[in-house]
Amino acid sequence: MHRQLVLDKISSILDATDANYDGKLTEILDKASRIFVSGAGRSGLIGRFLAMRLMHSGYDVSVVGEIVTPSIKTGDLLIVISGSGETEQLIAFTKKAKEIGAQIVLISAKSDSTIGDMADAVFQVGKSDQYSKVKGMPMGTVFELSTLIFLEAMVSHIIHEKGIAEEEMRARHANLE
Amino acid sequence: MHRQLVLDKISSILDATDANYDGKLTEILDKASRIFVSGAGRSGLIGRFLAMRLMHSGYDVSVVGEIVTPSIKTGDLLIVISGSGETEQLIAFTKKAKEIGAQIVLISAKSDSTIGDMADAVFQVGKSDQYSKVKGMPMGTVFELSTLIFLEAMVSHIIHEKGIAEEEMRARHANLE
Amino acid sequence: MHRQLVLDKISSILDATDANYDGKLTEILDKASRIFVSGAGRSGLIGRFLAMRLMHSGYDVSVVGEIVTPSIKTGDLLIVISGSGETEQLIAFTKKAKEIGAQIVLISAKSDSTIGDMADAVFQVGKSDQYSKVKGMPMGTVFELSTLIFLEAMVSHIIHEKGIAEEEMRARHANLE
Amino acid sequence: MHRQLVLDKISSILDATDANYDGKLTEILDKASRIFVSGAGRSGLIGRFLAMRLMHSGYDVSVVGEIVTPSIKTGDLLIVISGSGETEQLIAFTKKAKEIGAQIVLISAKSDSTIGDMADAVFQVGKSDQYSKVKGMPMGTVFELSTLIFLEAMVSHIIHEKGIAEEEMRARHANLE
Repeated sequence: MHRQLVLDKISSILDATDANYDGKLTEILDKASRIFVSGAGRSGLIGRFLAMRLMHSGYDVSVVGEIVTPSIKTGDLLIVISGSGETEQLIAFTKKAKEIGAQIVLISAKSDSTIGDMADAVFQVGKSDQYSKVKGMPMGTVFELSTLIFLEAMVSHIIHEKGIAEEEMRARHANLE
Repeated sequence: MHRQLVLDKISSILDATDANYDGKLTEILDKASRIFVSGAGRSGLIGRFLAMRLMHSGYDVSVVGEIVTPSIKTGDLLIVISGSGETEQLIAFTKKAKEIGAQIVLISAKSDSTIGDMADAVFQVGKSDQYSKVKGMPMGTVFELSTLIFLEAMVSHIIHEKGIAEEEMRARHANLE
Repeated sequence: MHRQLVLDKISSILDATDANYDGKLTEILDKASRIFVSGAGRSGLIGRFLAMRLMHSGYDVSVVGEIVTPSIKTGDLLIVISGSGETEQLIAFTKKAKEIGAQIVLISAKSDSTIGDMADAVFQVGKSDQYSKVKGMPMGTVFELSTLIFLEAMVSHIIHEKGIAEEEMRARHANLE
Repeated sequence: MHRQLVLDKISSILDATDANYDGKLTEILDKASRIFVSGAGRSGLIGRFLAMRLMHSGYDVSVVGEIVTPSIKTGDLLIVISGSGETEQLIAFTKKAKEIGAQIVLISAKSDSTIGDMADAVFQVGKSDQYSKVKGMPMGTVFELSTLIFLEAMVSHIIHEKGIAEEEMRARHANLE
């Protein structure tokens, strides 16, 4: 049964992912003036899931590439989601953001990468060898789904730590959709 | 030559569009806490052109339907761009925004419409009869292009009135793209 | 630990989700001329995950609301992702698609709903009572994550059934990003 | 009056834009298997206006960066819209598309640029010196609006040349929006 295989794989990836990440990432988010989220393709979709929940939780957050996204500045945070840490466009964004004086966080399947070398912090989801040859889950699927669960759990951590009420989140949620 | 025909048509539409609109619309924008822009299809693209320029000019602006767009509240402004004033989804947005206590502005080719009836102000671009049977400009093209020029000129009005420097706008413009 | 709670919840939802859905949904997809995917907010993101994988697998697929999405016709399939089955805009899409003669599939947390009543098939993810009062997972999170895993597993089913090689999927994947 | 200034500027830019471009660009479009449109920020919006009209006119067209956009191949055409011809991300796309064997068309304010050097054809909108110091039209506005009118007129040329009926275009236009 494919569902169970997918869940088991995500579970083993998350078991190999540092339990302290939730607290560390929350700390970095709380220090940032504004948060910018970037990712290519399906990693960009994961970034959007995260961005929406951060907005609900009261953070000032933008998705890189959207029409009303402003310029990034010193004191802002750029979150880069990239399984390989080598996506060409995201390397360019990371360089520019770093020059400007923004903080960089990479969320990746790799411990070492071009973006990782420039980042202030790297959050590695799983271990590199866990991603090789996963039968029936094409391309970056394992990274994407594991990262999504990791980030949703991190948001759940934030909600608990700060005691954010669900009514408060609902009140921020888009009412024109 | 098609280019000249297109420009002539836009020019005659804009000649028939109230010269006081720039000032009136600026006044409404300045009173709003936050601005929400909505439109379907190509009118949605025009809304995005406007939203980016308003962001550059220092307004707090969101595009309806984007992932980090928050809830609209009393004191906010919803700008609806709809040639017909009858787009089903935009009627629903207008109703909801009105109930919540937001101000509504409609930019339209029609003086009377379902959205217009609910709006606090209607800005009619051209006159209804100017849109009938424009050879070689399919569907809403005349409305879309005229509205885009109208709104760009309105932004130009704002920039002059407020003395916004181009450097200031550039400093706000996305630097990750 | 939030990660484990999230995974356990998804696991119990998927256990309560009919195991025959993968085969049934694949059959419906294979009969469609073209596939249109729609959803609001985060359900729209899940629809995009699905749409990309279906494109990789060789289906002709469009996301409702994108700029180059064509008109839906008889013989086409509209997939609606809606936890409540009551999203106003999606009710309107479903009505219009049904009038035109397209097939409608609803993926939902509810067995009964306005969209469900119009749909040719309803795929219920979990049971309604499983969604009430999930601590620390705000709003639609449980439905969204469970549905994403359900759909990814369904794509995995398709890949196995049809013997689609990963190279073939990679060859279709966007090379400009 | 700002509207007249904007229209006059666009008019003088279009007067300085080769009248044969409409025919030449149509010829290139007709030779392509599939068309991919790309641009950053507001030039990306212009690309979306073009992409929608090309879809209406019966071409197989995708917007680079959208979720269901497939890989570009030999025989396909990449249209790049870039005022400077130097947008970093678009340089990367152009290089990759060229290596793969796709045709490249640049639409630009410059006759010489990095992208222009790699392109199979450059369509220069206006002359470079016409863009310097346009009072009250910030940043790329003159290029963007002139290019939009140029491309809309080019689509109008296509519609006339091929005798595409407006009903045919309407039948292709999205009916879920």
